[in-house]
Amino acid sequence: MKGIWLEDKQLELKTDLPIPTPPSGESLVRVVRAGICNTDLELLRGYYPYTGILGHEFVGIVEQGPDNLINKRVVGEINAVCGQCRFCRSGIPTHCEQRTVLGIINRNGALAEYLTLPVANLHPVPDNITTDAATFTEPLAAALEIQEQIAIAPEARVLVVGDGKLGQLVAQTLALTGCDLLVIGRHTEKLGKLEPKGIKVGFADLVKPKSFDIAVECTGNPEGFNLALQGLRPRGTLVLKSTYAGKLTLDASALVVDEITVIGSRCGPFAKALELLAKDKVDVTSLIETTYPLEQGLAAFDRAQQRGVLKVLLNMD
Amino acid sequence: MKGIWLEDKQLELKTDLPIPTPPSGESLVRVVRAGICNTDLELLRGYYPYTGILGHEFVGIVEQGPDNLINKRVVGEINAVCGQCRFCRSGIPTHCEQRTVLGIINRNGALAEYLTLPVANLHPVPDNITTDAATFTEPLAAALEIQEQIAIAPEARVLVVGDGKLGQLVAQTLALTGCDLLVIGRHTEKLGKLEPKGIKVGFADLVKPKSFDIAVECTGNPEGFNLALQGLRPRGTLVLKSTYAGKLTLDASALVVDEITVIGSRCGPFAKALELLAKDKVDVTSLIETTYPLEQGLAAFDRAQQRGVLKVLLNMD
Repeated sequence: MKGIWLEDKQLELKTDLPIPTPPSGESLVRVVRAGICNTDLELLRGYYPYTGILGHEFVGIVEQGPDNLINKRVVGEINAVCGQCRFCRSGIPTHCEQRTVLGIINRNGALAEYLTLPVANLHPVPDNITTDAATFTEPLAAALEIQEQIAIAPEARVLVVGDGKLGQLVAQTLALTGCDLLVIGRHTEKLGKLEPKGIKVGFADLVKPKSFDIAVECTGNPEGFNLALQGLRPRGTLVLKSTYAGKLTLDASALVVDEITVIGSRCGPFAKALELLAKDKVDVTSLIETTYPLEQGLAAFDRAQQRGVLKVLLNMD
Repeated sequence: MKGIWLEDKQLELKTDLPIPTPPSGESLVRVVRAGICNTDLELLRGYYPYTGILGHEFVGIVEQGPDNLINKRVVGEINAVCGQCRFCRSGIPTHCEQRTVLGIINRNGALAEYLTLPVANLHPVPDNITTDAATFTEPLAAALEIQEQIAIAPEARVLVVGDGKLGQLVAQTLALTGCDLLVIGRHTEKLGKLEPKGIKVGFADLVKPKSFDIAVECTGNPEGFNLALQGLRPRGTLVLKSTYAGKLTLDASALVVDEITVIGSRCGPFAKALELLAKDKVDVTSLIETTYPLEQGLAAFDRAQQRGVLKVLLNMD
């Protein structure tokens, strides 16, 4: 089969990969659509030394698996866990010590014709969600993780820093809480996607220092982090949503003096993401920049790495 | 009067300072004992551009003020607040926008014969607390702030990194919760002060990665921060208790992937600190390295800056 292979920070379109044989408890899924995520781009830059097929955002059709899933459209949670380690037993399986992660840690990913995942990871896609929209389930779930971690009151003043793919999803999901939201970005066109939804947007100069209860950092760069920190009131909460390829240098004394809380935030609830998509509560398809066939996967990565580009999808159909 | 003056990162023993006149609402306090804190040493290194009399840990006698305090021994909260700004009104006066801070921000400090503070900041010292012990009220309150910010369950596995003045107080106060505590330091002698109290102690190699629920960073250096971070389990909490003169460089991706919470922690509850001292629940006087008369304040600072030295006090009596 064909697949986008990462090795030593180099991408290759392989055409002779074996179709995987699902181990016990796993399903074989034929991928029909997949998205390129910033984490894929960070992996390409060496954020984590991964070798294998990239990709963890996908919609597929189950070809081998339990009867109730056969021929169904599915999305899949990306952490394949042991169920037995101390973290699985303590109720945080996404932090399993033995976990493999689709296209990220020791498990071939979704930018290929086929993948395998544990049956327990798969979620059928409701019929009224298009395949394009369902491809956003994983990043949408990641955006929703914020609300799993901290309570967002309607009166909360919330700052989102970043107008890219992640920032857009974070902004839309936070707006659903009714909080007092401001999204800061650098691109008029991207911010323009949020404004018609009634979300306040602007550039960095709009951030009044020490005025927000919660700030969500979605840029992955130190400038974004520092803007989020400056915007927070004393005892405010900074949610760190991006992965960073490099180290982050910060003013730790500011954290101490203002008693700031910083929370790292990763994978989130798929069921809630699918529910939002099924109820059409978030608009994800307007975030699609373009779609390439799998065969043009390398061109798709070139495009995804260009400044200001939103979601690039790959089509395997 | 005499006082230890900081200006342009230089200390001077001034002998011709005017005895301050308390403004309305403030008391004149004759200082009898004061402590040198790491924050004083950081200010000397330029952590914050302060000019004035240093010092914020003290015991004094009220010479001018309300009748119920006259001639009483007192300690004092260090943040003098406006009571009217948005932070005072929202119940976090220690974060007052207009605040002055004793010996730290725009307010002459305690390393002098006299100081003034708002009457509301003063707490009478119970008779059964010695003056030496009461001098630790402020740092002890700061240690107790941790328990104001996060719940520490008896089954919690807690790591304290740092065996210095702050680490010792943090360790003793955390031990009172009955949690499963380990204190990591670099000095056998300092760790030896905690061991007889039934507190587990050791060097960095004793920290099993990803095994603690809570880690408290009390060293103020990046190695300490990274050790605390490595020791934390996924979704663990890192309390940042030290001020840092420089920037802190950290692996932000580790925060995100492990969904770590970092909480900055500053000033704490004086009443609770005095209660612990009155009930003899913590041992602070064994942390006194030595005491100098105010006239030898510069020598006291030289001593306080030596590696491995615990609390240096100044005596104004």
